[in-house]
Formats: sequence, structure tokens, C-alpha cells
Amino acid sequence: MSLKLDKTVRNEHLYMEIYHYYRGLILNHKLLPGSKMPSLRKCAQELKLSRTTIENAYLQLAADGYIISKAQSGYYVTNIASRPDPARNPHTENPSACRYDFSSSGADRESFRFDLWRRYIKSALRQDERLLSYGEPQGEPDFRQALADYIRERRNVLCSPDDIVVGAGVQSLLHILCPLLKDKKTVSFPTPSFVQGSTVFRDYGFDVRYRNKDCGVIYVSPAHMTKWGEIMPISRRLELIRYAAEHDSLIIEDDFENEFVYLQKPTPSLHSLAGGQGVVYIGSFSRLLLPSIRISFMVLPESLRDAYLQKAACYNQTASKAEQIALCQFIRDGHLAAQTRKLKRLYSVKLKQLLTAVQEVFGKDSRIQIGAAGTSLALTLSVSLTGKELKEKAREQGLRIQILKESTDEVTVILSCSSMPVEDFLPACKLLNEVCSRFPVHRANTL
Amino acid sequence: MSLKLDKTVRNEHLYMEIYHYYRGLILNHKLLPGSKMPSLRKCAQELKLSRTTIENAYLQLAADGYIISKAQSGYYVTNIASRPDPARNPHTENPSACRYDFSSSGADRESFRFDLWRRYIKSALRQDERLLSYGEPQGEPDFRQALADYIRERRNVLCSPDDIVVGAGVQSLLHILCPLLKDKKTVSFPTPSFVQGSTVFRDYGFDVRYRNKDCGVIYVSPAHMTKWGEIMPISRRLELIRYAAEHDSLIIEDDFENEFVYLQKPTPSLHSLAGGQGVVYIGSFSRLLLPSIRISFMVLPESLRDAYLQKAACYNQTASKAEQIALCQFIRDGHLAAQTRKLKRLYSVKLKQLLTAVQEVFGKDSRIQIGAAGTSLALTLSVSLTGKELKEKAREQGLRIQILKESTDEVTVILSCSSMPVEDFLPACKLLNEVCSRFPVHRANTL
Repeated sequence: MSLKLDKTVRNEHLYMEIYHYYRGLILNHKLLPGSKMPSLRKCAQELKLSRTTIENAYLQLAADGYIISKAQSGYYVTNIASRPDPARNPHTENPSACRYDFSSSGADRESFRFDLWRRYIKSALRQDERLLSYGEPQGEPDFRQALADYIRERRNVLCSPDDIVVGAGVQSLLHILCPLLKDKKTVSFPTPSFVQGSTVFRDYGFDVRYRNKDCGVIYVSPAHMTKWGEIMPISRRLELIRYAAEHDSLIIEDDFENEFVYLQKPTPSLHSLAGGQGVVYIGSFSRLLLPSIRISFMVLPESLRDAYLQKAACYNQTASKAEQIALCQFIRDGHLAAQTRKLKRLYSVKLKQLLTAVQEVFGKDSRIQIGAAGTSLALTLSVSLTGKELKEKAREQGLRIQILKESTDEVTVILSCSSMPVEDFLPACKLLNEVCSRFPVHRANTL
Repeated sequence: MSLKLDKTVRNEHLYMEIYHYYRGLILNHKLLPGSKMPSLRKCAQELKLSRTTIENAYLQLAADGYIISKAQSGYYVTNIASRPDPARNPHTENPSACRYDFSSSGADRESFRFDLWRRYIKSALRQDERLLSYGEPQGEPDFRQALADYIRERRNVLCSPDDIVVGAGVQSLLHILCPLLKDKKTVSFPTPSFVQGSTVFRDYGFDVRYRNKDCGVIYVSPAHMTKWGEIMPISRRLELIRYAAEHDSLIIEDDFENEFVYLQKPTPSLHSLAGGQGVVYIGSFSRLLLPSIRISFMVLPESLRDAYLQKAACYNQTASKAEQIALCQFIRDGHLAAQTRKLKRLYSVKLKQLLTAVQEVFGKDSRIQIGAAGTSLALTLSVSLTGKELKEKAREQGLRIQILKESTDEVTVILSCSSMPVEDFLPACKLLNEVCSRFPVHRANTL
């Protein structure tokens, strides 16, 4: 095999040349799946290049899945060329094509102290003995203690660590909770938008309804009643608790985004208002820490705790033990509280700036809905497209939006400020306006 | 507040003295929950000790939950003294009381290269951008590619990354799989021992049976047919596939411990024998890496993949994204294959040594069952106790065992070699023998 390479390319790009050369051979089936790559030594000799350069090229090819290393043997071509083109697969989008992302519920890139979290994870990974065993099905005991202390202090939720069940996200908790509610047949959600929640209930045979208090289970997110952050007033909270108690319904309080209530004092949790009776309290950390940290927890009322304990050993813990250990100490050292204060300040400022940008681009009279909490606002646009079409047209321009609802000639979109840098607000809004103005509404009376 | 401390104690123990002093005050309610601890400066002055010593004591108190730090304020006493005594709670056992653990399915403490894994996790945690977003519901694409390559090479399971669904443990996968099998009503498990699996099916309304091929779903672990490591011969595998195909049953192949088949060549996977038709292949890493790493995956056959894809967005990913990224590169770099070879060698040797120890203590004629795979053997003991009683008596002596079955005057226990050091085999067996000999069986014909 001989290689023709332009020797004048700059040295640091040399390995990428070699990378592209071999990549081409593999994709064009000149090098077949399973065949062995030339050894580093041989290849370096032939090309009169350093072994390091060749090795860098091979490592890059391996990282991208073109070749695979086999210990004490060498590199071999994978079957990547015979696989379907990932670009043609709608399930693996190319994220680099997205310039502005209003749809993300990810985190602000400046907000998270990666260095700090890495330190805690590193320290957790030093607890060799502890990591050698399976975790407690209910969640690590010290972590549950830290959680109990934290929610007692911040949300006035009084419970013992024995009442707390930890899981990898809200769905994992619902998978344990639903089978304990065999006598209930119906569940009410505030809106159809939380599909992850309603799916689990449906999978277990529940009849799912919306905004219907006459259900066996009432699922609410009092600090996130709508996508644009409306929160449930205290009078309605009390009313709901009374109604549920009278009808023997169970309330599931998903305290999502209670930390991001800006415009008023956070209202007391349903759990605290109800004295812990008839309420399952659910808390999560994906919005406070990293979305990629999958840890949630639920506080079971006495009536469900005993039923759970009888089955506890039947469920494996889903959350990473190392992450539980790390988060436990992170909370104890006060970092979660500090991070929450910081994010609350940050999102409050960002949301105001997003509002300013929207009003500047769409005019003072634009139809905006904004609540007392959260990281999003709702904007209603006049456009001769369906929601799906608008989303698609925006996507073509590198702009991602989330559709809330639509009617004739109108689409309401949700714009989230959480993961977009402030300096992008104005150009992103302008781009959205541009897309819309290409599809104006021709009203009958304006013709 | 004044402190009386023996100033002659060695310096490095000084902080523990202070720790115990305050711990005593807190547990005896001399320092009440919520009260502020003296400042480091004040305490150091009063005791004429360095601030560092005091701080170390406080950090230890905080780590153990007696006090809690509040940023820019100081340390405060928690309500730990008014909580129920954890020692009295049967759900939080004291692991230090266990001298020998035959019941553990944990890992050998020498077997895992923590340093290496920490490096991969550290590197994964550097991918800040990637960790700022939620993971793919199906699992990270590059990780699924690495998995597809790995199982193709090692188990001849041919699939595309699109067929793979990642989750935090087998249960998380079954929670997604079961709702896709609405037309099936019955499931067969080989034994009642895998409660985590049967629980999920029961929760979804399936009728659970045992060793019954006439079920809509047949769940098998061909490399772990019994607790003592019997594996399914190839003839029975082929028979099972034919029978399932004829009756339109779905096979779920949990390839648990296929890596630890010592006494013969690993038999081909059901998935490969069936050409991927009508088989869901499930793989896990808890036995190969750390039990605390919660990552499993399933390969869906074409018939189920489309049904899954329609609902994919309804399920959040449960496995840690950082651990997926780390494991992906760990596999690509060949470490999983190396670790598997190492463990297979290790457990094969350990199991033989356990057998030797058991025979030395219980005699050459002791009734032992041992298979071609796994990390355990079964030992049948003559004893005038029930299984539960024997387990309890052994536990009182600091010995943990797992009960397989019992009949009059006989208990069969499972002894696992995986997490016990080799040097403990003999004393642990002797201890078990001692416990049993205190409760001999008085047979009618021996009186």
C-alpha cells in the first residue's frame, strides 16, 4: 500500500490528512471490514513520518468508529461503511446544525461549576469498598438523610430518610409508585405536555385525564403549572388538599422548578400544607445541577411507605451510586443551596432580557405570556403555517423552538432562556421573525 | 463553654477527641438541634489548639451528620439526636458486623482497576457541553455503537446501534419493554429467584409462571440457569428457539454471566442462533465492572424496534450520561475485554479454591452442586433449623449466607466466592460448620 500525501501541509494537520485518507479508503470499501490496518511502525516507515503522527490518526479513526484496536494485535477496520448513513437517520440529528436553541431544557453553560462537581465525583470514586457492592434499593442511607435535611429546611417537608425513595429520574420513581396504587384507576395531569409521566400511568392501565380533580391520583407541579411558569396560588393549594382528602385521592406533588420562583416568595409545598398526609412529594436535580445527572427522589406518606417496604427488595436502585455519594456530600457542604441561589438570580435576569429582546423584535404589542417562575415565556405568532411546519422551517434556518399550541393562523411557541447565551437572544428572535414573515397571514378583511 | 481534654493525647488524635466531645454533647442533648457551634477561631483560642485541628473535627462531625455548615455563617447542630436510632432500624444493617460474606454478589476487591475507571470518568466529566443537555432517550449514540461492535465480536449478536436501548439496570429496560408486549399475557421465568424481573412483569399484569414454555414471553439466562452456574446446552437452546417460533412466543435472553463460563467454551447466544428473530438480547455490566455502575442494554428485534421508536421520546434515559461516555471509551480502548478475561481467570481459580475449602471442612462426601459457570456453589447441610433460622444464626456469628431451598432436616445454601478474599474461605466454612453442628439432626434410626 502506498500513500500520496502532500508533505507541505503543516505538521499539526498531518495526522488529519492521514485520518482522511484512511477514512476514504474505508468508506469506499477499499479497506474491507475486518481487515487489519498496517502497523504503526510499518506505516510510519513507509510515509517517513513519526509514529506519533500515525498513532494520532489511528486514535482519531478509532474514536470515530472507523477502526477498532485489539490488544496486542493491532487495529482493524469496523463495519462502519456497511452501516446505514447516520445523517439519513432522523433519530440522530446533527446538533452542530443548530445555531440557536430556544427549545432546550438544558442548563446555562456558565452556571455549573464543573470543577467542583468533578472534585466530588472523584472523591466518591475513591470509596472503593462502597462501590464494590450493589446500592441500597431505596437509595444510599446517608444521601437520603441529606435529602431529608435539605427539603425540611427549604420546603418545610418533614420526613424521615426511611420515607424517601431515590431513583434515576421521575419515571423510575413512578415505575415503583404506580404498582402501589392498585386501587386507583384514574390520574389527572395539569396538561398533556408531561408525556414521560402520563406514559408510565398509561402503561400501568390508568385512565389519564387532564385538569380533572375527580381522579384517584392528582399529579401537579405547583411551581410549573404552565410552560411559561405560572405557579399555583396558596388558596388553590389549600382547596386542592381539602378536595383530595374528602375524595380519598392521592396528590403527587412534583416540585419541579420551585426554586425558580422569582416574582413572589415561594409558596409552601402541598406536602407541608397537608402535613404530609395524602401527598407524595417528588424532587429532582436535573434543572439545578446537570440535566445529565439522573437523580430524583420521592417522599412517601405513611400509608404508602409500608406497602413500599414490603416490595422494596424487589426493585434495584437505578441511580448511579457514585453520583449519589457525590451529591450527598455536595448538599452537606452547602453547594446545592449556593447553586440554587445562583441559578435563580441568573435565570431571573436572563428571562427579563429575553422578554426585552422579544418585545424589541416583535413589538410592544406582541402576545407574550410570562409567569412568576421558570425559564420560559410563551409567544403567540400570526403565521400561515401549522406548528409542525413552523418548527420545521425554523429548524432549516438553524433555530430550534418548541410548539405549545396552534389555531387557525396562529402558533404559540415556547422560548426557553435556560441554555442560550444572552447575546444570542436578539439574533435568534430576529431569525424567528424572519421565518414567520415569509409566511404572513392574509386575513379576509385586510384584502 | 469550656472543654476538658487530655492534652497528652497524640496530636493526630486530637481532632478525634474534639470530635467525640462534641458528638457526646449533641447526642446527649447538651447541644440542641439548630444551635450554633462556636466559631473555629473562638474554639481554637479557648482550647489553645490550631484552627486546623478544630476544623478537622468539625469537618468530621459534618461528614457524619452531627453538624451542618452554612455558608458565611458557621456550623449548626442538626437534629440527628432526635432521630430514631439507625441501629434499631432493620432496614439499615450495620455492614461492619459482618465478618464473612458468602451472600454477596458484589465484586472482588482486587479485580477492579479503580484508577483506570476514575480516569475515564474524569475524562467524561470534561465534556462539559455534552453534560449540559439531557441524554438521548435511547442511550448515547456512540455508546450504542460501541456496544453493537462489542457484542457482535464477542457474542455474535448482529445488530445496529438503532436496535439497542440503554437503561439503568435490567428492570429499567423491562419497564420499557413490557408495555410493548401488550398482546402477551404470560411470562415464564426459569426459577422464582429473579424477583426483580418477575416483579416488573407482575406489576404490568402478566401472569408469571416458572419453567413453562407455553407462555407468551420466555425469560431465560442461558449462562445462569441455576444459582450454582448450570448453563443451557446448545441442543436445548435450539429446541427452545424452535418451540418459541412455532408458538409465536418472545424469548428474552438475559446473557447474565455468559463471561464466566469456565468449564467449556461459551455456547452461542440464543440471539445468534435465532438469527435475531424473536429474541430480545439483554446484557449488563454490573458483574464485569462495578455493581454500583447501573448500565444495562437490550437489543430489540425488528418487530419490537418500530413499536419502541414510536414511544421512544416518552421515556427518559435512566443511565448516567457521564458513565455511558466513560464506558464507551473504556470499551473502545479494549479494557472491557481485558477486564472480562481477568475476571474469568480470577473467579475460575477462586471457585476451585472455595470447593477445596468446603470439602476440607464438610468432608469429601458433602453434597455440593457446582456448574460450568458463575461464582457460586450450592451446599446441602443436615441441620435441625429452617433456612431462615440458619441464616439468622449464621448472621449472629458475623457470617452471611443465601438460602436456596430447604426440606425437613436439610437446608441448601449458596456460597458465592466473588467478593470474599481467598484466605477467608477456610475460616468462613469452619464457622458455618460450627453453627450447623450446634443444631444437629437427630434421626429416628440413629437414636
